[in-house]
Order: sequence, then structure tokens, then C-alpha cells
Amino acid sequence: MSLLVKRWKELAEVKAELAARDWFFATSGNLSIKVTDDPLTFLVTASGKDKRKQTDEDFLLVDASGNPVEKTQLKPSAETLLHAEIYSKTNAGCSLHVHTIDNNIISEWYGDDGEVVFSHQEIIKAFGIWEEDAAIRIPIIRNYAHIPTLAQEFAKHVNGDAGAVLIRNHGITVWGKDAFEAKKFLEAWEFLFSYHVKLLLLKGAKAFA
Amino acid sequence: MSLLVKRWKELAEVKAELAARDWFFATSGNLSIKVTDDPLTFLVTASGKDKRKQTDEDFLLVDASGNPVEKTQLKPSAETLLHAEIYSKTNAGCSLHVHTIDNNIISEWYGDDGEVVFSHQEIIKAFGIWEEDAAIRIPIIRNYAHIPTLAQEFAKHVNGDAGAVLIRNHGITVWGKDAFEAKKFLEAWEFLFSYHVKLLLLKGAKAFA
Amino acid sequence: MSLLVKRWKELAEVKAELAARDWFFATSGNLSIKVTDDPLTFLVTASGKDKRKQTDEDFLLVDASGNPVEKTQLKPSAETLLHAEIYSKTNAGCSLHVHTIDNNIISEWYGDDGEVVFSHQEIIKAFGIWEEDAAIRIPIIRNYAHIPTLAQEFAKHVNGDAGAVLIRNHGITVWGKDAFEAKKFLEAWEFLFSYHVKLLLLKGAKAFA
Amino acid sequence: MSLLVKRWKELAEVKAELAARDWFFATSGNLSIKVTDDPLTFLVTASGKDKRKQTDEDFLLVDASGNPVEKTQLKPSAETLLHAEIYSKTNAGCSLHVHTIDNNIISEWYGDDGEVVFSHQEIIKAFGIWEEDAAIRIPIIRNYAHIPTLAQEFAKHVNGDAGAVLIRNHGITVWGKDAFEAKKFLEAWEFLFSYHVKLLLLKGAKAFA
Repeated sequence: MSLLVKRWKELAEVKAELAARDWFFATSGNLSIKVTDDPLTFLVTASGKDKRKQTDEDFLLVDASGNPVEKTQLKPSAETLLHAEIYSKTNAGCSLHVHTIDNNIISEWYGDDGEVVFSHQEIIKAFGIWEEDAAIRIPIIRNYAHIPTLAQEFAKHVNGDAGAVLIRNHGITVWGKDAFEAKKFLEAWEFLFSYHVKLLLLKGAKAFA
Repeated sequence: MSLLVKRWKELAEVKAELAARDWFFATSGNLSIKVTDDPLTFLVTASGKDKRKQTDEDFLLVDASGNPVEKTQLKPSAETLLHAEIYSKTNAGCSLHVHTIDNNIISEWYGDDGEVVFSHQEIIKAFGIWEEDAAIRIPIIRNYAHIPTLAQEFAKHVNGDAGAVLIRNHGITVWGKDAFEAKKFLEAWEFLFSYHVKLLLLKGAKAFA
Repeated sequence: MSLLVKRWKELAEVKAELAARDWFFATSGNLSIKVTDDPLTFLVTASGKDKRKQTDEDFLLVDASGNPVEKTQLKPSAETLLHAEIYSKTNAGCSLHVHTIDNNIISEWYGDDGEVVFSHQEIIKAFGIWEEDAAIRIPIIRNYAHIPTLAQEFAKHVNGDAGAVLIRNHGITVWGKDAFEAKKFLEAWEFLFSYHVKLLLLKGAKAFA
Repeated sequence: MSLLVKRWKELAEVKAELAARDWFFATSGNLSIKVTDDPLTFLVTASGKDKRKQTDEDFLLVDASGNPVEKTQLKPSAETLLHAEIYSKTNAGCSLHVHTIDNNIISEWYGDDGEVVFSHQEIIKAFGIWEEDAAIRIPIIRNYAHIPTLAQEFAKHVNGDAGAVLIRNHGITVWGKDAFEAKKFLEAWEFLFSYHVKLLLLKGAKAFA
């Protein structure tokens, strides 16, 4: 039981930090953290809450199918299935999904390509890649309204204990071994997105400067 | 009386959150929340206050005509009539009006069209629309300096318990069944505005990138 | 003496708000508030302080010439002379000078014109102008390194109890009857600057969108 | 020993301020402050920490070679060698290294030139330069993945008790006589970067406005 409390606190702390950046506009976003492996259980954000607030109903414990472990009036986030895919296919311990202006822009800009690759950026070291000319790739998938279909498409890109997927005009989902790592990866991606959008704008302006 | 206190607190909480985003530049913006239906009374922001501060004079109770219910030295917001239109024509419980850079930009950019339509954005689900190719429309009206004329023009677009109107180079007014819903809709609109402005900039830059 | 404390608190409150917006990069900016009329004394920010902090040495009392009224180790802001011009020529009670990215951009963009005029913006009502097609003008002066020369040029544009001047690639100085009004005007100007810069960017991008 | 505590507090305060601006995305950035001259020791940020948090393990004391003075499980920042270069070659007392979107953009935009020069900006006075047409130059070096090589290249530009270097697509390193001065210089540079990026965008848009 103390493990559940520990994980709750870790997830609440991440939620508060992301809320401080205003990354949960209009109740968007969902977060989860694994609690036990066998059977698989994880805490996931309750659906439809204002994530700028901290309450006792922010998260609920669900099983490998995304169903509540205990009787509750809370509904797990509509996208709980995507988190379930991550925990059943990998050893990840935490998964974060947020909508930001810049991750939406990048997902639309490169959506037809199905991916975007970034390189020559120091922040890529946050992913544990230290080569000088390192490149990093993130897949971009279609935003299926039907969540099981979205989860199925999403699952194709869940191939490691750490990773990230952009859902077009929707947001990013990032996972890592624990809350600390998942948040670090998320911040690195958002830095890359914001940098890249600004550089594209500047390159467009250059011809006349 | 306890209902009045409850509503006051709800509105104060929304006000504090929007103030934290700095959405009340130069004492702009006004907010209201319905207290009773019969007779209609609602709390509305007092005119000319710095909304970054929390005081006992932030709101005052007005009737269906927008006049103070009790004797007070406070003046209701100059645009109280717009809020009155919403409560008299719909079952909405809360209405929020804010000036932001991006809602002003969008209102100017599409002002001659009298509306703007957004589509293919996950955040549209915040409006309770779940279709994959959903589109959402917001009317843009002229910013009449004469408030009764503005209220009359505004009233033409008040057709449901939830809705939103852009006033050109002025701001957005959003309403919903309660403070939670109105704020959620407001955040969804502002996300759409910011996303769209940035995408327009990027499309302009693309030709040379 | 209690008046001095009252004014100190008012100015400290404005300073804290502007600091929260991060409008004092690199110890830039200076603020003042009038304390007495006859003889003229006003509190002005001490030179070279980090204005994100609140200390007992944030302000010092100076006379009409900008010299400290009492013996002190503090130095008044290098631009105290500009504040002195305002209090000696008008009935203003507070003056605020800040450097922001957008006020610097606007001052450079229209610097050769010596002014910029904004119109068709609701926020102009913050200046007490309620006409529908109201326009508002702000002069832009050269940034003389020699402060007495700068003050002399600045003084030419100090013609009323409320007003504002842009100094090219330097910042804005705004004054009004009291701290509340000066801050309101400042926020209105900054809103206009940010809006206008973004609209210019969008207009440039339009041809290709 | 009290000196160590004093310096720790000074550095912790700067760290908290920069964290409030969100300048430490993905555990990036590193900070240091000199404690003693003979032998040279300085506090430097521990590697891999989330710098938005304040803990007792945020910094550790290292010697002129960047090695921990006491036995500790903490690892000094991977870029401690750059800080060591500064303290061994100059009388600087504090050095700050941060990644921001705008410093990365500028470093990429002018990277091939090996430097960028800014002029005609009031904020340049923050560097103690008061001439009217003052210009200020910052070198831009290649981002060698091999830290000793990076430190060697970096050292070529460490020629005074105050200074700054941009590392391409990586970040800025600024140093000054103490924490106050280093932070002031850092803010001045970031203001210049943000201003310049925006002006470049606007100049590109101008042709069509």
C-alpha cells in the first residue's frame, strides 16, 4: 500500500509541474505511473478533471485492461488504453501525454511524412545519446477518434522501455522507466519542437532579411 | 445566502486562474456567474478593478437588467448587458469574457468573414464533439462602442446553453452550464486560436524554408 | 510620514507585479511615485538593483532635481531626471519605465517615423477614450546616452497628467495620476505592442498562406 | 565554512530564479560559484538533477580540475571543465550555463560566422558599456561532444573577468565577478537574443506588410 502512495505522490508532483506550464488546456492530457508488475496495475488520471488542481480524485488504479481495480465513481482517462499498451509491451514505469501548441504544430507540419527527425541539438543528450551528430526520430500517427483503433496504431510504435509518439493535431505521449525520466524526455521533446518551429519561421523570413 | 457564497467562490477561483495567465491586461475582461433563476440574479465583476487582485469588491449581484440588486458604490462591468443576454436566453450558468493577443489577432484576421471555422483538432473534443472530422465555428461581430447595440448584435449569436462569440479586436465571450465548463471552453478556444495563428505564420514562411 | 509608507507600499506592489512578468531583465527599468507636492518629493528606484527582489533599499526619496532628500548610500536610478520632468510639468502621481521585447521592437520598427499610431482596438478604452474609431499615438524619441539630453528631448512630449513615450531600442515610460492608472496604461500599451507585432508578422506571411 | 554556506545560498537563489523561467529543460544547464581562491574550489551543480527542485544535493564542491573535494556519490556536471577554465584563467566568481530556445536559435543562425554582434540597444549598458553606438560581440563555438575538446575551444574565448560564449545548438555560458553580475549579464544576453530573433522575423515579413 505504501508503494501506491509513493507512486501517487510522484505522479502528482509531475502533474503539478506540467500544470504550472499550462500544458493541460481544457482538461486535456493524461498521465500514468505503474504500481505493480504482477498483476499489472497503474495509476491513471481520472477523466475530465481540471489538472491545475490537486485533489484526492486525480488518479485511480486500473488493471492491464484499463479497468478500475476498485469500485469507484471515477472514470479513467479516455486514452487509458494507450498507457496500458506501454506497460504491457515494455518495462516502462511512467507515461505522459500532453497537448501543447508546438507539439500540435510539428505533428501537423510533418504529419504526411509519418515522422520527424531532429539532429545537431545538444538537448538530444537527454535521451542518453552522446554522439556528436546524433539524430532522433519521433513517429507521427493519425488521430483516430476510435480509441481502440488509436491504441492499436499507437502500439506499433511501442518498441522499447523509453519512447515517444506524436498523434497528429492531438499531442505527444512519452514514456520512460520512471516519472523522472519520462518528464525529462517530455521536456527534451518540447524543447526540440519549439526550437524547430522557430527555426522554420526564421528560415522563411530569411530570404528578405 | 450560502448559494451566493458558493458562486462567489467559484467565480473568484476562475478569476484567479485567468489572472495567473495574465488575461486581464489594463483591467480588461469581465466574468459572471448565475446565482438564482427566478428572479434571475448573477454575480458580475465590478467595473475598473485590477483583476490580478482578490478583494471583497470584485463582484456584485445584479438582476436581469444588469442593475445592482442591493445599494452599492460598485458599478457593474460596462458589458454586463452581454452577460444578461446569455442568462435570459439560455440555461447557461457562467460567462467569461477576456482579451488575449491571439483572440484579438484571429478576430481581426477573419473579421470580414464574420466567422472562423476550425477543424481536425483533438482539442475540439472539449466541446463534447467526438467525430473524427469535427469542425467548430465561432462568429465574429463588430465591436460597437455603444454597448446596447453591441449586446443586441451579440444576442443574435446566443442560441444555446453553451457557446462563444468573438468581438473584433476586443475579445472572446464564452458561456457554459457552470464555471468549470465555461473555463474549459475558453481554454479550448484559446488553444485553437494560438495554434491557428502559429500555423498561419508557418505556412507563410514555408515557401522559403 | 505615513504618506511616505503608503506610497512606498503602492510602488512596491507595482514593482512586484511587473517583476512577476519579468519586465526588469538585467536590472533594467525604473519606477517612481510622488509623495509630496510642495516641495516636490518622489520615491524612485535605487540604481542597479535586481528588481525581482523586495528589500528596504528598493527606493529612495528624491527632490525636484532628482537628488536624495536624506543622506544615503543608495544612488537614484540613472534616469531619475525623466521622472523629475514628469512631476514638475504635470500633476501625474506615478511613472513607470520598462524594457520589453515588444516595446523595443515597436520602437525600432517605427523609430524613423518618430511615432506610431494604433487604432480600432478595444483596449484603447483603457486610456479613457470611448469613441469607436479611436486612435492613440505614442512618440518615439532617440535614445541619447547623455541623460540630461535624453531628459530634455523627453520633456518635449510631457504635455499632460497622463502620457507615454517610447525611447528607441530602450523602453517605454508611462505616467498617470497614480500607481493604479500608470500600471493600467502600461499594460494597455504593452498589449497594443504585442498585438501589433504579431499582426505585422502575420501580414507578412499572408501572401503565401 | 560559513563562506561555503553563503556561496551555496547565492547559487541556490540564482538557480531558483532561472528555474522559475523554465531555463533548465530536461535537466539541462549547469551553474557554479567560486568558494576559495587558494586552493581554487567552487560549487557546481550535480549532474542529472531536475533543477526545478531545491535539495541538499544540488551542488558539490570541486577543485581546479573539477574533481570533488570530498567523497560523495554525486557527480559534478559533465561540463564542469568549462567552469574550471573560467576560474583558473580569470578572477570571475560565478558562471552560468543555460539552454534557451532563443540562444539556440541565435547560435545556429550565426554559427557559421563564429560570432554575432549586437548594437544600438539600451540593454547593452548592463555590460557596463555606456557609449551611444556601443556594440557587443559574442563568439559562437562548435559543440564538440568530447568535453575536454569543448573546454579547450571554449578556453580560447575566456579572456576577462566577465564574458560569454555561445555553444552552437547547445546554450550560453556567462561569467562575472559574482552571482549578481553573472545573472545580470545572462539576462542582458537573453534579452538581446529574443529581441534579435523577433526583429529578424519581422524584417522577413516586411516585404509584404
